[in-house]
Amino acid sequence: MPGSSFGTLFRVTTFGESHGGAVGVVVDGVTPGLPLCEADIQAQLDRRRPGQSAVTTPRQETDTVQLLSGVFEGRATGTPVMMMVHNRDQQPEAYAELKDLFRPGHADYTYLRKYGLRDHRGSGRASGRETIGRVAAGAIARKQLAQRGVRITACCIRAAGIACSAYDPDEIERNIVRAADREAARLIVEKILAAREAHDSIGGVVECRVEGVPAGLGDPVFDKLDADLGKAVLSIGAIKGVEFGAGFAAADMAGSQHNDAMDRSGFLSNHAGGIIGGISTGAEIVFRVVFKPTASIARPQRTVDVHGHETTCETHGRHDPAVFPRGIPVVEAMTAIVLEDHFKRQAALHA
Amino acid sequence: MPGSSFGTLFRVTTFGESHGGAVGVVVDGVTPGLPLCEADIQAQLDRRRPGQSAVTTPRQETDTVQLLSGVFEGRATGTPVMMMVHNRDQQPEAYAELKDLFRPGHADYTYLRKYGLRDHRGSGRASGRETIGRVAAGAIARKQLAQRGVRITACCIRAAGIACSAYDPDEIERNIVRAADREAARLIVEKILAAREAHDSIGGVVECRVEGVPAGLGDPVFDKLDADLGKAVLSIGAIKGVEFGAGFAAADMAGSQHNDAMDRSGFLSNHAGGIIGGISTGAEIVFRVVFKPTASIARPQRTVDVHGHETTCETHGRHDPAVFPRGIPVVEAMTAIVLEDHFKRQAALHA
Amino acid sequence: MPGSSFGTLFRVTTFGESHGGAVGVVVDGVTPGLPLCEADIQAQLDRRRPGQSAVTTPRQETDTVQLLSGVFEGRATGTPVMMMVHNRDQQPEAYAELKDLFRPGHADYTYLRKYGLRDHRGSGRASGRETIGRVAAGAIARKQLAQRGVRITACCIRAAGIACSAYDPDEIERNIVRAADREAARLIVEKILAAREAHDSIGGVVECRVEGVPAGLGDPVFDKLDADLGKAVLSIGAIKGVEFGAGFAAADMAGSQHNDAMDRSGFLSNHAGGIIGGISTGAEIVFRVVFKPTASIARPQRTVDVHGHETTCETHGRHDPAVFPRGIPVVEAMTAIVLEDHFKRQAALHA
Amino acid sequence: MPGSSFGTLFRVTTFGESHGGAVGVVVDGVTPGLPLCEADIQAQLDRRRPGQSAVTTPRQETDTVQLLSGVFEGRATGTPVMMMVHNRDQQPEAYAELKDLFRPGHADYTYLRKYGLRDHRGSGRASGRETIGRVAAGAIARKQLAQRGVRITACCIRAAGIACSAYDPDEIERNIVRAADREAARLIVEKILAAREAHDSIGGVVECRVEGVPAGLGDPVFDKLDADLGKAVLSIGAIKGVEFGAGFAAADMAGSQHNDAMDRSGFLSNHAGGIIGGISTGAEIVFRVVFKPTASIARPQRTVDVHGHETTCETHGRHDPAVFPRGIPVVEAMTAIVLEDHFKRQAALHA
Repeated sequence: MPGSSFGTLFRVTTFGESHGGAVGVVVDGVTPGLPLCEADIQAQLDRRRPGQSAVTTPRQETDTVQLLSGVFEGRATGTPVMMMVHNRDQQPEAYAELKDLFRPGHADYTYLRKYGLRDHRGSGRASGRETIGRVAAGAIARKQLAQRGVRITACCIRAAGIACSAYDPDEIERNIVRAADREAARLIVEKILAAREAHDSIGGVVECRVEGVPAGLGDPVFDKLDADLGKAVLSIGAIKGVEFGAGFAAADMAGSQHNDAMDRSGFLSNHAGGIIGGISTGAEIVFRVVFKPTASIARPQRTVDVHGHETTCETHGRHDPAVFPRGIPVVEAMTAIVLEDHFKRQAALHA
Repeated sequence: MPGSSFGTLFRVTTFGESHGGAVGVVVDGVTPGLPLCEADIQAQLDRRRPGQSAVTTPRQETDTVQLLSGVFEGRATGTPVMMMVHNRDQQPEAYAELKDLFRPGHADYTYLRKYGLRDHRGSGRASGRETIGRVAAGAIARKQLAQRGVRITACCIRAAGIACSAYDPDEIERNIVRAADREAARLIVEKILAAREAHDSIGGVVECRVEGVPAGLGDPVFDKLDADLGKAVLSIGAIKGVEFGAGFAAADMAGSQHNDAMDRSGFLSNHAGGIIGGISTGAEIVFRVVFKPTASIARPQRTVDVHGHETTCETHGRHDPAVFPRGIPVVEAMTAIVLEDHFKRQAALHA
Repeated sequence: MPGSSFGTLFRVTTFGESHGGAVGVVVDGVTPGLPLCEADIQAQLDRRRPGQSAVTTPRQETDTVQLLSGVFEGRATGTPVMMMVHNRDQQPEAYAELKDLFRPGHADYTYLRKYGLRDHRGSGRASGRETIGRVAAGAIARKQLAQRGVRITACCIRAAGIACSAYDPDEIERNIVRAADREAARLIVEKILAAREAHDSIGGVVECRVEGVPAGLGDPVFDKLDADLGKAVLSIGAIKGVEFGAGFAAADMAGSQHNDAMDRSGFLSNHAGGIIGGISTGAEIVFRVVFKPTASIARPQRTVDVHGHETTCETHGRHDPAVFPRGIPVVEAMTAIVLEDHFKRQAALHA
Repeated sequence: MPGSSFGTLFRVTTFGESHGGAVGVVVDGVTPGLPLCEADIQAQLDRRRPGQSAVTTPRQETDTVQLLSGVFEGRATGTPVMMMVHNRDQQPEAYAELKDLFRPGHADYTYLRKYGLRDHRGSGRASGRETIGRVAAGAIARKQLAQRGVRITACCIRAAGIACSAYDPDEIERNIVRAADREAARLIVEKILAAREAHDSIGGVVECRVEGVPAGLGDPVFDKLDADLGKAVLSIGAIKGVEFGAGFAAADMAGSQHNDAMDRSGFLSNHAGGIIGGISTGAEIVFRVVFKPTASIARPQRTVDVHGHETTCETHGRHDPAVFPRGIPVVEAMTAIVLEDHFKRQAALHA
């Protein structure tokens, strides 16, 4: 099937380009009776909107969601929920000069090679704006998951050479890079501001922890819980890697170290990251993703145009010097979508 | 849908447990006319079969494939290709003592929690034997991809603290750990044998490179090529992480470093790993996965039984002290399945 | 997956209730480059809109479509096309008295039993308004199919005891019941007006013919072309049966009669309706569907309310005394969606 | 996706050609714990096997099923159940003369046009043997449905001009045409034997009734219960039409007749056939299908060969003079598969 849908029983379909009429999402499979209103959605969208802090793009967009179907008298009816945000006219003429250019690190070249034509205003479907639909859908999943006792929390754990050492979950939403370590957060903010000053950008590592998932979720063989979570987050534009539990460090571990022993109280360690054989163990689910540095930077870079002529490209405009602070709610949203889907799959298996 | 199928247009469905009647696969969507015979499949199965070297399990199984449908007079007809390998009776009594135990690092506990009952002989669907179907399906995809000019090569690049520094593709199938660096291979073999001697096991990192993929494959938004490849390899039991191009190192890179500039000849670097915006760039596709150390080790580990009693578990039997040497053909197979699928998707988009 | 999506490669997802904010559709998999604008869509929506003739509901709704994504400079980009029609406030208070009633022939009872709650304003998702999304998606498919040389024409062939005997395709859009026989059309119109006068309604049989489909479309085993067309039209609310070619008459035919013999010029008859073994033969595709009489009638009918009390129900309001005249463009739309999908599937198979 | 799979949560994938190595099926999504053994499957296969009576082909095949995965100690484990029947070598040389011929009424021509090549031994995937996998999968669904209180019964109600007037369900398996009217059965048998004598064949109408389905199954909009049942049965090779409840007769009914009124005890009639708005009403589900006459007849018919030369074709061999008696268990199997799937979907919706 074409690639704008995700999930099997909690099924999400996004639409819209950065500079078209609107971006949004249709969510099919919402449990009927779930209390739901626009404010539930808006709360999550506000965490990803531009202009929220000194380390994000200064573009001011309210990204006000409209919820146009699937809810009646404050509750989900079980029919598709359509939510959308109208695009405001964001100076498309600013993109006229980029019309024939392939911006380094952007999908300009690949979209043209894939489709044979492209919407050159902004990044079209490859724009971060597409994630509005994901966050809106994730907000529904989160609300249902909260009723199931599941809590999802992602935070920055490393960026620009600064690694967090503390983990205080209450700290995360108090600092603008969403790190769980206040002092590291301060240093990372400095690095980001310095990068912007230098017309450059930085990447970062985000860790996601999920509490309250019972043992037994995930569907062998191909739809393992980690495989589905992995796909979900790798489908976020700027993410280039994912690891569960001990992750890449497992390469240098012995089996006797990596295996999580058990006693009566449960697992004695969690190198598996809460998933064994593709199925949740009941322990905390832990994974990490890496965000690449923002592709748009305001310094000249070598590139070619659609005619094959060599040139340079400088992306001025108003861009995020680091993507991950606004990407964190997107990681959480995709995680919520996968988990809600697997709760339903497990119920279906045993029905 | 239940999780035993993968792919959209090149669609793979595996079946079978390690100690049931047979393991195998149905492949639907093979291009009619493709020359195909059992020997094509067997050649790949031989690369993953047990007993092939000093670093694999000494179990001797020929894993002889039967191809029972979808091929007529040496060519694929376009109808489902069913391939299977009969299981030989592998001392199921050897598993009797494990019947009520949760082996650390194995899916015993999670399968019981998922299904409410489990086939305790071996690991059932969580067994490495399930990958026979993947390798068989991948052999078909590889054959088709070869006609498209695509070549997939995976190799070990790090294990047990030893990192490869050379990359000689001709070396890979000449050493038993499938490393592209002969000297590193020798050291890794030593580490594996020492681990086995110590009743322990080791993990490793495998890199996969794909040449010949044209620009334009991959389907935004959710079915990005890296998202689909990521899911494909994360669905292999022992793999706990995946990264593309610069991968996790991107966390400490600046945008000006990470962006791949272009000139007339193409990309001047490949930090993206051959995929931007979820679509192939035409450059080599490069990703790395981490295999955890084998869970089965012959030393006592703390665990509990199904009644909640604490005990210890020692897995004797004949196990691989490292999974990755036999896992490499599985990584290649899953890669081939994803790519063949996306070639067909791209054709359908433009039809 | 939840049931609001249809198709594999040309993939349609509808949303919206009759009295919610909007109804619409997301279409994923449109061939990039297809010329497309709102007028293409509106032309088909105008054929199904209310108030268009004496035999339809007198409700006046313009059903003006907005096309909000997936089109750039007059051409489809290959990304999802979202189209929607805002609902105008249609006297929801008119439905207040029906809040607790199960209207005979309507889905009130079944929706409540399925979902546990329901949007009692109009028929929610079971409303004919849901077909706006189908017709909009079908308009895109039709436009692409026209480029492939395919032409789809449906018409009324029987209603209220009147059977058409002539077949003049030019006549169809000239009469308000869309029959290909002018004299029969006149009689059917009389029957419909008489039924409305009598506070009653009528059903009808619609035949759909498709010219220009090459041999080879359709995907055995389960996704036979007739199985997919059958599902497509049976998913239209008022349709209760479908038959291909000779259809139910085949029960009384001998094989020697039913088999379509061939000579050099092709098939000598078309009892198969253009599909054998689930694959198009290259002959005209011919099938018939039956529309049940409109459920809403303005005479008292026995029913119960949600509390189980017996009562009677009279649906006044402004309803169509026969559904099929406005249903004909919906049949054509669903046919177009299936065919466009199978063109893409056939391309993928041979890619 | 390619067309050899069916269902969403109870997912069936068939494989195999009439003269290949084997035919069979993989069923994914079986509820873990369901008691299951080969005898359960064989009992249904015996109802469809050749050679069972004077009105079926005299070919003697035992069609002995092997169940090779997904069952442990007499219970389904929840993992894929693979079942297959080996083909015995059925005089493939008998087909040599048909190699280049297009048999009228067969899929020879359409398969060649679809695939570009074909397995000319028998009918390949278009053979009735493909339905072995459906019946085997259906046997699992039936067993689960029996535990849910659902009973599925199909029978012949009309053939060769003879209509049944009585309905005695106990009679069905007592006569060889599976009619619920003993006297009509006798007449139909005579017609079939006369047709065979005349080197001809006949069609028939089969009615399927399902008791015990609760209200609320079926998933609007596209996956209506009647749409899914319709697709399921239309995917059976010889079936050319399907109608629910009043079916095509609704074309001549008034709304006041067709609407099923309700009182406290439930519906007072069942013109809807147990499904309204695509959702089960709790009343008996009733639908009818038409089987075309067997295509293979032993009299000369005009046709062409693959080179375009005109010729005649006489299919001797051992064929069923009417397909429906052996088709009845296939109709029941497909019905069971759809219903089991929708039970699981309903559970998932409310999970």
